[in-house]
Amino acid sequence: MGKGGMSHGAAEGKDGEEENMAAWLLGINNLKIQPFKLPPLGPHDVRIRMKAVGICGSDVHYLKNLRCADFIVKEPMVIGHECAGIIEEVGSEVKSLVVGDRVAIEPGISCWRCNLCKEGRYNLCPEMKFFATPPVHGSLANQIVHPADLCFKLPENVSLEEGAMCEPLSVGVHACRRADIGPETNVLVMGAGPIGLVTMLAARAFGAPRIVIVDVDDQRLSVAKELGANEAVKVSTNIQDVADEVVQIQKAMGGGVDVSFDCAGFNKTMATALSATRPGGKVCLVGMGHSEMTVPLTPAAAREVDVVGIFRYKNTWPLCLEFLRSGKIDVKPLITHRFGFSQKEVEEAFETSARGRNAIKVMFNL
Amino acid sequence: MGKGGMSHGAAEGKDGEEENMAAWLLGINNLKIQPFKLPPLGPHDVRIRMKAVGICGSDVHYLKNLRCADFIVKEPMVIGHECAGIIEEVGSEVKSLVVGDRVAIEPGISCWRCNLCKEGRYNLCPEMKFFATPPVHGSLANQIVHPADLCFKLPENVSLEEGAMCEPLSVGVHACRRADIGPETNVLVMGAGPIGLVTMLAARAFGAPRIVIVDVDDQRLSVAKELGANEAVKVSTNIQDVADEVVQIQKAMGGGVDVSFDCAGFNKTMATALSATRPGGKVCLVGMGHSEMTVPLTPAAAREVDVVGIFRYKNTWPLCLEFLRSGKIDVKPLITHRFGFSQKEVEEAFETSARGRNAIKVMFNL
Amino acid sequence: MGKGGMSHGAAEGKDGEEENMAAWLLGINNLKIQPFKLPPLGPHDVRIRMKAVGICGSDVHYLKNLRCADFIVKEPMVIGHECAGIIEEVGSEVKSLVVGDRVAIEPGISCWRCNLCKEGRYNLCPEMKFFATPPVHGSLANQIVHPADLCFKLPENVSLEEGAMCEPLSVGVHACRRADIGPETNVLVMGAGPIGLVTMLAARAFGAPRIVIVDVDDQRLSVAKELGANEAVKVSTNIQDVADEVVQIQKAMGGGVDVSFDCAGFNKTMATALSATRPGGKVCLVGMGHSEMTVPLTPAAAREVDVVGIFRYKNTWPLCLEFLRSGKIDVKPLITHRFGFSQKEVEEAFETSARGRNAIKVMFNL
Amino acid sequence: MGKGGMSHGAAEGKDGEEENMAAWLLGINNLKIQPFKLPPLGPHDVRIRMKAVGICGSDVHYLKNLRCADFIVKEPMVIGHECAGIIEEVGSEVKSLVVGDRVAIEPGISCWRCNLCKEGRYNLCPEMKFFATPPVHGSLANQIVHPADLCFKLPENVSLEEGAMCEPLSVGVHACRRADIGPETNVLVMGAGPIGLVTMLAARAFGAPRIVIVDVDDQRLSVAKELGANEAVKVSTNIQDVADEVVQIQKAMGGGVDVSFDCAGFNKTMATALSATRPGGKVCLVGMGHSEMTVPLTPAAAREVDVVGIFRYKNTWPLCLEFLRSGKIDVKPLITHRFGFSQKEVEEAFETSARGRNAIKVMFNL
Repeated sequence: MGKGGMSHGAAEGKDGEEENMAAWLLGINNLKIQPFKLPPLGPHDVRIRMKAVGICGSDVHYLKNLRCADFIVKEPMVIGHECAGIIEEVGSEVKSLVVGDRVAIEPGISCWRCNLCKEGRYNLCPEMKFFATPPVHGSLANQIVHPADLCFKLPENVSLEEGAMCEPLSVGVHACRRADIGPETNVLVMGAGPIGLVTMLAARAFGAPRIVIVDVDDQRLSVAKELGANEAVKVSTNIQDVADEVVQIQKAMGGGVDVSFDCAGFNKTMATALSATRPGGKVCLVGMGHSEMTVPLTPAAAREVDVVGIFRYKNTWPLCLEFLRSGKIDVKPLITHRFGFSQKEVEEAFETSARGRNAIKVMFNL
Repeated sequence: MGKGGMSHGAAEGKDGEEENMAAWLLGINNLKIQPFKLPPLGPHDVRIRMKAVGICGSDVHYLKNLRCADFIVKEPMVIGHECAGIIEEVGSEVKSLVVGDRVAIEPGISCWRCNLCKEGRYNLCPEMKFFATPPVHGSLANQIVHPADLCFKLPENVSLEEGAMCEPLSVGVHACRRADIGPETNVLVMGAGPIGLVTMLAARAFGAPRIVIVDVDDQRLSVAKELGANEAVKVSTNIQDVADEVVQIQKAMGGGVDVSFDCAGFNKTMATALSATRPGGKVCLVGMGHSEMTVPLTPAAAREVDVVGIFRYKNTWPLCLEFLRSGKIDVKPLITHRFGFSQKEVEEAFETSARGRNAIKVMFNL
Repeated sequence: MGKGGMSHGAAEGKDGEEENMAAWLLGINNLKIQPFKLPPLGPHDVRIRMKAVGICGSDVHYLKNLRCADFIVKEPMVIGHECAGIIEEVGSEVKSLVVGDRVAIEPGISCWRCNLCKEGRYNLCPEMKFFATPPVHGSLANQIVHPADLCFKLPENVSLEEGAMCEPLSVGVHACRRADIGPETNVLVMGAGPIGLVTMLAARAFGAPRIVIVDVDDQRLSVAKELGANEAVKVSTNIQDVADEVVQIQKAMGGGVDVSFDCAGFNKTMATALSATRPGGKVCLVGMGHSEMTVPLTPAAAREVDVVGIFRYKNTWPLCLEFLRSGKIDVKPLITHRFGFSQKEVEEAFETSARGRNAIKVMFNL
Repeated sequence: MGKGGMSHGAAEGKDGEEENMAAWLLGINNLKIQPFKLPPLGPHDVRIRMKAVGICGSDVHYLKNLRCADFIVKEPMVIGHECAGIIEEVGSEVKSLVVGDRVAIEPGISCWRCNLCKEGRYNLCPEMKFFATPPVHGSLANQIVHPADLCFKLPENVSLEEGAMCEPLSVGVHACRRADIGPETNVLVMGAGPIGLVTMLAARAFGAPRIVIVDVDDQRLSVAKELGANEAVKVSTNIQDVADEVVQIQKAMGGGVDVSFDCAGFNKTMATALSATRPGGKVCLVGMGHSEMTVPLTPAAAREVDVVGIFRYKNTWPLCLEFLRSGKIDVKPLITHRFGFSQKEVEEAFETSARGRNAIKVMFNL
């Protein structure tokens, strides 16, 4: 990908019309605010003025590597996918929204023609068009056009920033659904990073009576405790310690672990999760630290401990908004940094997110 | 364990009474037919004259190693757990059976007091008493005493040998239930040994429209084709070949693999199963070749390919008998060798089972 | 609705172009073959030449009453929805089909924007556009335009008539899925009309080991036996006989009824289904004879006999085609009458379907 | 049943031994405190000193009619089944409890030999022995003997009275499980009597975000609001009002009703529940007002509104205790009256319970 691709998608500002600007990923560590031409508004679409956009780990990954998992950025691409905004225009067939509505935005558009879509597993659609997953543009822009049915009106007491947090929260919600969390499920969360935290919050909102969270970092564990974990267990990075740490974890739980979420995805975290879970329980693999894993899968399988994976989410926005509205989940403490939408601030924001541990969620206010 | 333990459990023959004999595992490669004293008949028990007992891989494992997984033989133990026989006496409260009934026998007695039993997952009961799993005696004996509710009357057209085959078949049936096999599930079976074959037969009986079976051995694959596999794919033992073999398998399937059964349980078979299965599908880990596994678990989880394990079975006998009665499953071709119940024949039978590939199931006729 | 509406939708034949003709429902007992203008072909659509169209009970109902349940025919409407044909033209984005493909057609187009669609229950979509459900036109026409993803290529050994039969068969398949029929489910079918028969065939294909069918008519029961019912029980129309008939049914079953399908939907059939089903079983209400029902619901609920309903079907065509391809289901014996597509034959065909019992399925060959 | 049966089960007090007394149902409106001989303590049993026993509607029913549903009191029977107490003696094999433990008691002993028990639906066991369901004695006694696995240790902050409340609460918990209540389920409760209230409390604890409760009585509705209902709708007893009241209910819900619990079980309440529930929702029939019901079942089934019934409960005590421990449910406000265990107070207590509406739960303190 060269800078030759740069004029791609850029719009000429017309007389009296504001030019729509977006944060374009142009190369490794090269992010520029440039014009972004909006597609035409279809009958079922809305045009939204972006107000809050969060930075995700995958955004940072693309910026540093121009790739994430199997997805490679080959052309300049607008970045960003955790977002909320205000409706500015509605398509001719849109009945669910009106101009002025504040909405949280689900970023993926699936085909609704394949088997997976028709069976209700649209998150697995092979034709998915997802914000900032190449070659699809993202949403860190002044305005975007999106299908109305993927825009969810915010309850009065939910802010736009909280609306943008529905995206990472959706990962936790989807994980809890796949692992069937309820008021009888004692939960272990491996990893107290942003995804570990939203999974913990979601598990609590699904009714989990007892949650033990595990990390290598005291600071993260301390945040997790403040956010509601019953017990926090500090562990090493040494694979030899798994057996001892499993004992510690089970003691902290004060009973069997019904479901473990591995929100880190390393050999050690997954080995711990598999070993700590009771016969007939589940391990949900959320994090993606290692691709190939060396883990005691057979003994777990022989205890009928099932391993379920997740890919993004589906049908999560209404529930996230209900959790935020009712106060069952408070995501505000997760937003640790805020930036405006200037070239300089965009660069700073991504650096802040990339740097480190005291940043949980970095948010743009546009 | 020494020979000093040998008189343990042996019964003196009383006047006019036949002495009950059983095959005792006394040490490594040391199996002897000796007297076996029956426990008293409880009100819900029956006494059964054994007529057919099959040899399982775990029996051979105990004979060669005095252990299997975490179970260790410390005292002399009667071996055998795949069995069927004829009712000779019924307890005072037994209403479901009468003397003379031919029955297939489920070998495990669970506690019915723990949570897992009460939730219907009694196969995971931590207090399970299971034939020939130390320290519980097995059923390769002239007679045994067992709870009546674990003895299932054979339909008229099902033989005692077929009755004994309900035990290995139950493994396949339980795997199919856990993987939710039905008329829309295209199935891959990794491994064409005895467990691969019963899993394949069960999957067909659950309605699987298309089954591809994979092994390293031409002879086994040829048997699998005769028993009903749609396609047989020969593979190498080289882990480097996984990607190519996945392509071959998917081509043989002519479409997506919905569920894979790994009936071998090695890194390579599991890697193949995980990679070959479609997004949203399942891998059921049945075999236990490796304990720790190095496999591409994360990419599979990110396609929401779930991994389910199995431990033995539950509530499978009635369905197995229905499959045998209706002819949906024919297990007779799996019985490749037959032996009587003499000291010499017992030794020969175990050697035959241990040796090799042309033996699928070795059966005693008592 | 008056004849004034008649020119609605009719197309002028252009030079050298064939005029597309369809069977229009114009009033009570007034069905006329008239021109039917095709809508433009969208990028994901196909144009299909109809070859086989079956008559459904609802088609007859519309012809006799201009209404069915809550749907009222207010404008002239093309009738017919059980159909198969040959692709004549494909839209620019269609990759799954080519001209000349023989296809079976799923008649309903759902919105894919509502919650029910997104959760995979698209059959309940409140915006569903369904052939010949007013105000949507049906498919008894020379040609129609339809989304490609609702057209399913026929296997080589499945005829176009069998393809058209996928529609009624889908009702049975959906009922079996909702009632979770499998190889352990003993099934009772109340009513041996066309829907009772397809439900019976589907239940068998899902693995039901034993099926008892019940009707008031000897001829129907005789057909059901020929098509594979294990036992046929003749009953009266007298509600007083329920208790006795339940005994008869359970005797014919030779064990508990796990699932009952009420394919008639009258007080008596539903009372029988509810009473005959074992604790923990299910009753699936398929037929719609009575709207308000007087039935012993409370005693059934207190045995945890659940009542599940069905509305049409979803994702059934691939499975129906697999059942037909494999021979697990043979629908050919259900096609009892065939007609061509002339004004006279259309009238005769509907009369035949309306008249009576010896007609199971009346089919047009276009 | 005559007084001749009165010495049945009565124990002679031995020297220095306290005589065990119980409340015997001897005839219609004839309840007498008389000696009750305890059965021998089996190895898995415990002897419990009763401390709190609640009165259930079925107890009152037996007192007034000597029958309830199909169960008929033919011999003198000790009454009572909602209870908690303190362990006084444990059988030789009991490891889960020690003398002095405070326990809540699950009243039913199932056979664990039938299919339903083995599949985890032990509440449907045909051989169930259940307190105060003839001919099995109940638990309104100084002491009882019971299997240890049906006695659940109370958390420190849960009182014995609250322990006794686990029994009625279990009905609500089981109903919520069968109807799959979670944080996305908007719930309608028909009937604000004791069972309606425990169902409402359970639904809230399972996460139901919005609950509308309906009754004919202002006082009951007012209690329900205090206990946490979002909206209370007063209705008539006139079946003609169903359509209007459904509109009112849906307006009070402010959206679709996902699950309705009919805790009354009359034609009108069930008609309302069926009509108010959204397509794809569920109605759970809990109350048993009418046996035969006249309701619009077909239109509900055609919207795939399923009807699930409940019979008692299974595996509910641990969850009830967790709800009480955590404060997710507070049952204390339901206990409106308390009595001691004298002949006079027993009579008064039952009269209080029978009389009326301002009594929710009447509790004995022994």
